[in-house]
Amino acid sequence: MISILLLGYGNVGQHLHRAMQGVTGVTVQQIYNRSFVENIETPQTQKLSDITEADVYIIAVPDDVIGDFSAKLPFRNKLVVHTSGGAHMEVLSNANRRGVFYPLQTFSKNTEVNFSTIPICVEAENKDDLKLLKKLGSSISKNVTEISSEEREQLHVAAVFINNFTNHLYHIAETISAKNKMEFDLLKPLIAETAKKIETLSPSQAQTGPAKRNDTKTIEKHLKLLEGSVYRELYEKLTESIKKSESFDTT
Amino acid sequence: MISILLLGYGNVGQHLHRAMQGVTGVTVQQIYNRSFVENIETPQTQKLSDITEADVYIIAVPDDVIGDFSAKLPFRNKLVVHTSGGAHMEVLSNANRRGVFYPLQTFSKNTEVNFSTIPICVEAENKDDLKLLKKLGSSISKNVTEISSEEREQLHVAAVFINNFTNHLYHIAETISAKNKMEFDLLKPLIAETAKKIETLSPSQAQTGPAKRNDTKTIEKHLKLLEGSVYRELYEKLTESIKKSESFDTT
Repeated sequence: MISILLLGYGNVGQHLHRAMQGVTGVTVQQIYNRSFVENIETPQTQKLSDITEADVYIIAVPDDVIGDFSAKLPFRNKLVVHTSGGAHMEVLSNANRRGVFYPLQTFSKNTEVNFSTIPICVEAENKDDLKLLKKLGSSISKNVTEISSEEREQLHVAAVFINNFTNHLYHIAETISAKNKMEFDLLKPLIAETAKKIETLSPSQAQTGPAKRNDTKTIEKHLKLLEGSVYRELYEKLTESIKKSESFDTT
Repeated sequence: MISILLLGYGNVGQHLHRAMQGVTGVTVQQIYNRSFVENIETPQTQKLSDITEADVYIIAVPDDVIGDFSAKLPFRNKLVVHTSGGAHMEVLSNANRRGVFYPLQTFSKNTEVNFSTIPICVEAENKDDLKLLKKLGSSISKNVTEISSEEREQLHVAAVFINNFTNHLYHIAETISAKNKMEFDLLKPLIAETAKKIETLSPSQAQTGPAKRNDTKTIEKHLKLLEGSVYRELYEKLTESIKKSESFDTT
């Protein structure tokens, strides 16, 4: 049995808790959170001094406070991991054995996710801890990979492009629809299909549109339609980038 | 029975053909294409002079040749529509009754799509033709909407953002993965979830990440990791745009 102590109960903490509940061989024995958490049966505390013993301490707090938080833990030589894509393993205090347990996914409150397909990226300072994190990862996901802090940093940049930036493009499309009194719903099947294509085609194969086929007439027309829009420059930059990217990527 | 003559057999033509096959009340009676099409049972011709009579002539050729192509059709006063998001209805020759039958989706060869959820945007010069196009649309999709050429132009710009540009962001992520010898597959669940979120949340609600939370430290780190990359400027521009977009969209 792997016993887990969950430190922090934001989006990631809650989703991990839910994913680990009822899993054979894993028990979330206590949750620490600054404020009281309603509607959970797992024992909880708001005091660091009340934290009990566990095999893995999972820190799920904002990136910029991981270091300070880990330094306040009132014990030594335990396995303490964070769950962040953006933070190096070594931001954790070296009073304990350090590791990372990073689920590569976007989590929102009230949105269920299927953990079994989420890649869990693990890292640890020593082999036994790595083995334990892999075992823990495998108990909730079919997709567990060892990733170094350096690789994870790059992965996080890539994730910003496909999640944060992509979502912003959705937002721009919604803004254009709204300004022209059209339903954003009209565009939703296209959003779904654009993502779905990537399951079977590489993005290069799937690339279409005026920039790809160098259709200057359509590009000019679109730039004219975007006259005065704050999104005009992005249209230009993204178009340029698509045009150039074939030569980019072979260099 | 609505009889259809399909003019052009590229991606859109093929997908429309497949969608209309076996649909009650619709028959694709002939296909015109410049070159011979293998493996279809529908009668076909390579000569415009051999085109037979039909209720709706659907032009599915590249945007920049729609006008010229429509002017070559050897008949008058028939209903001729194009299938393009980017072209005005009036690029069609006025020798015939003009209309638009635009399936708002991205089509690739060998990728099956479920037409029933694809929005079909229709437009026509006269009421009876509009009614016929709506009926035809409804026979293959649950989602038929009347959209003017002006609205369709805006919709097409929005579609470029969520399809062409989004796919380019996938490509950038793939490039970053490859450069760091990581599998792009690791990022695919995140791509899927990012698109799926939009079914229940607005893009503004779904927005997360360093730009959204104004996490300057992470942004600086990412820009440093992208030093020397051709994609660094896009990271900057997209980050700026997210930061500003709340104030943008309320003005």
